[in-house]
Amino acid sequence: MLIVQKYGGSSVGNIERIKNVASRIADYRSKGHKVVVVVSAMAGVTDGLIKMAKELMPIPNERELDMLLATGEQTTIALAAMALNSMNIPAVSLTGAQAGIVTDGVHTKAKIRNITPKKIHSLLDEGNVVIVAGFQGETPDGQITTLGRGGSDLTAIALASALKADLCQIYTDVDGVYTADPRIVPNARKMEEISYDELLELASAGAKVMQSRSVEFAKKFKVVFEVKSSMNNNPGTIVKEETKSMEDVVIRGVALDKNQAKVTVVAVPDKPGIAAQIFKALADATINVDMIVQNVSHGNGIRTTDVSFTVDKADLLKAKKVIDGLKETIGFKDIITDENIAKLSVVGVGMRSHSGVAAKMFDSLAKEGVNINMISTSEIKISVVIDIAAAEKATRTVHNAFIG
Amino acid sequence: MLIVQKYGGSSVGNIERIKNVASRIADYRSKGHKVVVVVSAMAGVTDGLIKMAKELMPIPNERELDMLLATGEQTTIALAAMALNSMNIPAVSLTGAQAGIVTDGVHTKAKIRNITPKKIHSLLDEGNVVIVAGFQGETPDGQITTLGRGGSDLTAIALASALKADLCQIYTDVDGVYTADPRIVPNARKMEEISYDELLELASAGAKVMQSRSVEFAKKFKVVFEVKSSMNNNPGTIVKEETKSMEDVVIRGVALDKNQAKVTVVAVPDKPGIAAQIFKALADATINVDMIVQNVSHGNGIRTTDVSFTVDKADLLKAKKVIDGLKETIGFKDIITDENIAKLSVVGVGMRSHSGVAAKMFDSLAKEGVNINMISTSEIKISVVIDIAAAEKATRTVHNAFIG
Repeated sequence: MLIVQKYGGSSVGNIERIKNVASRIADYRSKGHKVVVVVSAMAGVTDGLIKMAKELMPIPNERELDMLLATGEQTTIALAAMALNSMNIPAVSLTGAQAGIVTDGVHTKAKIRNITPKKIHSLLDEGNVVIVAGFQGETPDGQITTLGRGGSDLTAIALASALKADLCQIYTDVDGVYTADPRIVPNARKMEEISYDELLELASAGAKVMQSRSVEFAKKFKVVFEVKSSMNNNPGTIVKEETKSMEDVVIRGVALDKNQAKVTVVAVPDKPGIAAQIFKALADATINVDMIVQNVSHGNGIRTTDVSFTVDKADLLKAKKVIDGLKETIGFKDIITDENIAKLSVVGVGMRSHSGVAAKMFDSLAKEGVNINMISTSEIKISVVIDIAAAEKATRTVHNAFIG
Repeated sequence: MLIVQKYGGSSVGNIERIKNVASRIADYRSKGHKVVVVVSAMAGVTDGLIKMAKELMPIPNERELDMLLATGEQTTIALAAMALNSMNIPAVSLTGAQAGIVTDGVHTKAKIRNITPKKIHSLLDEGNVVIVAGFQGETPDGQITTLGRGGSDLTAIALASALKADLCQIYTDVDGVYTADPRIVPNARKMEEISYDELLELASAGAKVMQSRSVEFAKKFKVVFEVKSSMNNNPGTIVKEETKSMEDVVIRGVALDKNQAKVTVVAVPDKPGIAAQIFKALADATINVDMIVQNVSHGNGIRTTDVSFTVDKADLLKAKKVIDGLKETIGFKDIITDENIAKLSVVGVGMRSHSGVAAKMFDSLAKEGVNINMISTSEIKISVVIDIAAAEKATRTVHNAFIG
């Protein structure tokens, strides 16, 4: 088999851990597999480099930032190759450029254009383990680029696709994808499998497993991958295309996002184009809006409505300022903000074929006396905004109701 | 003018110093010059990387060591470019490979094969300061290589040659080349100029100014360069081809090497081929022999001679073992070793046209009661081995006699 493995920054955080990673790689190789390994920078290294850069420029030149950050992964690949060499296993490290990873020229968040894995194939054929620097590539005219957050996962999944790998393993510091955050829900279980769409919905609902773009890439190119721990040998969670049997599970997982804040614009004139004005202004200020709810209009004389939406807590003040700036143009009455909220979501492709999921969720919350502020649904997700004080208890309640 | 500047590890040892270097570069640029800058890794970085590598492998794989060490200079070029950017000076960093520095494939001590400075020229023409990673290059098939000790000086001198630069400045933490080590000889003076050959002899005599290979490269390609301090604006020392007027100075400088040890092989049979056997055995063991003296033969019956030579103190035990292994074959009487010696040298092209230099040196030492153990001469150098206890006083004595 040809296996692509990716190890994140904490898995290669010091020399001892790099040795552990090398032992794991050696195990797979001793079973006759060809192994390509993608590594991140050692934990803390990238932050240290960014700190130095910011001492020189508050907003560092992006081309030079890529030149700088690319050294982090280059350090790890060389050390990982040495760790394998010291075990008498032939291993060769490759930078993103050397591995044939060609990107566009958008520094610090480049997109992979294509991968020419000729060199990787020939090194594998010679019996080597090939260690590739994650997170980085090269433009067609030889500029070093980086792929942005979650870039090493993306490198691994893109390489697995280009190499037509039989298996892609994303090693991390958790055992896999859980039905809920085990720190909140003690009886949360590790999933055996999950569909791309479910994982994407869980990510957008606040579960910190992987960056969405890597999952989207895997979905687009049909790369099956496994999320598993580099600290033990437990089986992880397989992420793959939806299968018929996946619909038997109504709710795959529960996610809680305590990082949202709610904004309500009170008594907005209920006429066409007003919502567009509000959300265009927010988008222009690069504020990411998550849930949007518009209540039914009320009032006597001019009909008005309340528009509520959620944003990242970090963007709350900026959002308030943007909306304030529209007061003259739009003519609303007031802005109410609330930081003490949380977003609770249930996700599952089984929702499509099972009716009554929303009702069951709301009912379980009502029985616990949890008030629902906002509701938003997609085909495979239901999210509610609730009081932050009740959030963890509500998460356990909903997990119990659907998963047990 | 097109100026190539090289800054060593201590000159770019922290963010503050990188800012100082940027100010200096900015000064030259504001005078209308085109500036190409070569930088080393920040002081301590390379040692830190080697330490990590050795934790994995006592003798690290050399290809991977190059991959690892190349990150040190890559970090500095990005930071230096940012420092200039923050002063609104356009600057672009280039790795050795991007700068067009092509080497052979001898990892950790690669030789520069050729430089194609097309990219540097076009970046300069666009108004940029170009920052090039010292110490590194790339093989024709895309492997990252490093040039070994003194590699960044070599990068600067080779670039100055390839770019036909008008000026090449090697910035360091001393003001230039001194007539002696100022810590030993308080009235040592900075030289205004020195010939390549004199600097080479001083280097081999123990003066730690620059690695010989960079000076040899400069000599071969007639690159005039200046050694000067990055801490002040004092003029440095110009290193160039010998001129007629240089012979007016009898002795350019005095050097002391306290890192040598002496080996005497006692009562070696005085017949052809014996010396060859001794020094071939030492060479096979990669022991570098410096001075060699063979005394006149003596004894009754079989004529024997004593053979003395010096080696690095670090190689002394190894050398003794090698010679011991020859006892059966050669049949000498004893081996005497002496670590308490030092080599004192005077260097100057003026020696060629001035007679009596050796006599004057020996006379000044005799007057101070310093006993001479061994003598060795070249066309422009006289070296003597003396007792280490008298070494510093003898250095001052000889400096006084010739330079003042």
